[in-house]
Amino acid sequence: MDFHSVYQSYRAQLDQVEFTLHDRATSHQMVLAKASNQLLDAGGKRLRPLFALICGTTHQVDRNTRDEVPKLAAALEMIHMATLVHDDVIDQAAVRRGRPTVRSEYGNLAAMYTGDFLFARAIQLLAEVDNSDVHREMSLGMVRLCQGEIEQIRDFYNWDQSIKTYLRRIERKTALLIALSCALGARVSAANARDVSALRLFGHYTGMAFQIIDDILDFVGNEHVVGKPVGGDLRQGNLTLPALVAAQQPSVGARLRKLIHKDMEQSDAAEAVSMVLETKGLPVARTLAERYLSKALGVLERVSDRRVREELAVLTRFVADRSF
Amino acid sequence: MDFHSVYQSYRAQLDQVEFTLHDRATSHQMVLAKASNQLLDAGGKRLRPLFALICGTTHQVDRNTRDEVPKLAAALEMIHMATLVHDDVIDQAAVRRGRPTVRSEYGNLAAMYTGDFLFARAIQLLAEVDNSDVHREMSLGMVRLCQGEIEQIRDFYNWDQSIKTYLRRIERKTALLIALSCALGARVSAANARDVSALRLFGHYTGMAFQIIDDILDFVGNEHVVGKPVGGDLRQGNLTLPALVAAQQPSVGARLRKLIHKDMEQSDAAEAVSMVLETKGLPVARTLAERYLSKALGVLERVSDRRVREELAVLTRFVADRSF
Repeated sequence: MDFHSVYQSYRAQLDQVEFTLHDRATSHQMVLAKASNQLLDAGGKRLRPLFALICGTTHQVDRNTRDEVPKLAAALEMIHMATLVHDDVIDQAAVRRGRPTVRSEYGNLAAMYTGDFLFARAIQLLAEVDNSDVHREMSLGMVRLCQGEIEQIRDFYNWDQSIKTYLRRIERKTALLIALSCALGARVSAANARDVSALRLFGHYTGMAFQIIDDILDFVGNEHVVGKPVGGDLRQGNLTLPALVAAQQPSVGARLRKLIHKDMEQSDAAEAVSMVLETKGLPVARTLAERYLSKALGVLERVSDRRVREELAVLTRFVADRSF
Repeated sequence: MDFHSVYQSYRAQLDQVEFTLHDRATSHQMVLAKASNQLLDAGGKRLRPLFALICGTTHQVDRNTRDEVPKLAAALEMIHMATLVHDDVIDQAAVRRGRPTVRSEYGNLAAMYTGDFLFARAIQLLAEVDNSDVHREMSLGMVRLCQGEIEQIRDFYNWDQSIKTYLRRIERKTALLIALSCALGARVSAANARDVSALRLFGHYTGMAFQIIDDILDFVGNEHVVGKPVGGDLRQGNLTLPALVAAQQPSVGARLRKLIHKDMEQSDAAEAVSMVLETKGLPVARTLAERYLSKALGVLERVSDRRVREELAVLTRFVADRSF
């Protein structure tokens, strides 16, 4: 089984998710409709929906459930997109996935309300999923997501943050929603508590690994593939694992603090990016990502359904392979 | 029966709402906790909770319902507060209710996430209300609220907008959430469909009247009572009913367009405010507010419970009397 065959076997449901996303992103309000559709068309891997769909096959009880899982999957992607739009405001990002961001095209205020709109549309979709556990867990997740986003602002340009601070931040930023995708997919399909817990933990570890990999790719990726300028995080004062590890080397740390601050020059940022590349920042980050991946694959063994186990393992390895 | 006796009879439940608001606004994340509590402490009339509580007494079925109405009431106030924080970003407002706004104290980005956080906390509260009609109606309401907010941006400084555009905007901005407060309060207490509809319509008309009155007070109110500078809407390019009516007088219209635009001088704005005061803008706005009020009081007669009818009428007249 490879990634594409997994993807193929969820093709019909993913199409349904795609239809729902476009259907719900409509608004008679043109800016909202355009901005939302632009976000949708920019694509993305629809990973959260795919996780939800796979985990939503664990116990499937009736026809209702089969309709509810794609709704849940679409809602998860919409929440993800809402956070991306608000993140772009924070990052003052001009480009995402190779296209102009909503904020660069329509302004920060429109981006704020496009995020709100997508958030509200997601809630509306969730209201159609008749499962109070799903509502409870998702709403708590959203509260934690917001807390994570404000921590992000606090941590910008802050060289005094620990690796632990970074890990807590990416847990909120990425791992949380992937954990929810897995756990709630399972819940909607009436999986037992043991499977729900195992899948939530699997999603958590996988999400941690994915974000660390993303942060590595930001330093080494090809600009045209990643869709963002190389070293962009550091250039924006977003201190990720490779940079924080680099900064722990005394000489490098002092120099990095001098180069990367709120009023830095872009030439200084470029120098800082090269510096990080010469340290053990990247190999240490890779090792940590690998550790999270093996924890994720380990916890998968507790899941009762063999097909779910195998498909999730394939998916996780495929995404992880981008960086190794 | 006067306003204070109505208020008194809901004292215990309002205290419970207040407790819930403060309880749920907490976060280990200091900026969020401070910003949210600051908003709460700034007070406000808690009108939406009061409407929900009154309408939540229509049919009360069991003990669960008695706990659910204050939760719903607190959620409505939180959504209201979330929109206020995001509005302050749009308006670049420095002061609200006589205190510095979240955005002026912590910055636009923190204000954006404080709004998101309050929004998420409201959803979390609603998830504890076991009523799928409430979830459905509230989530649709939030979608419409967001659409209204983005229209607000579009309509800034736009003298070509019609009175109808203004009315549609305030419907989304104010009337919608008051209509929801009444309708959902009734729904949680298992009111019949006829009562729910009548109360929703009552809330709609009342909300329309309240916003028009607010817009009148912006021109004539005492700065210390209203908590905002007089004529502030016009100074920010927010064209409300009195200004739009004034602009329909040909000579005045041409002059207003010249004075109020994106790059205007503050002295020009002051002149524009005085001009509006000399037109029939305010009396026309008062007449329209009165028409909405009498529609609201008229539709109340369809509500089956006499106490609910009387309390809502008292409350509506009290708020309306501020401007007449």
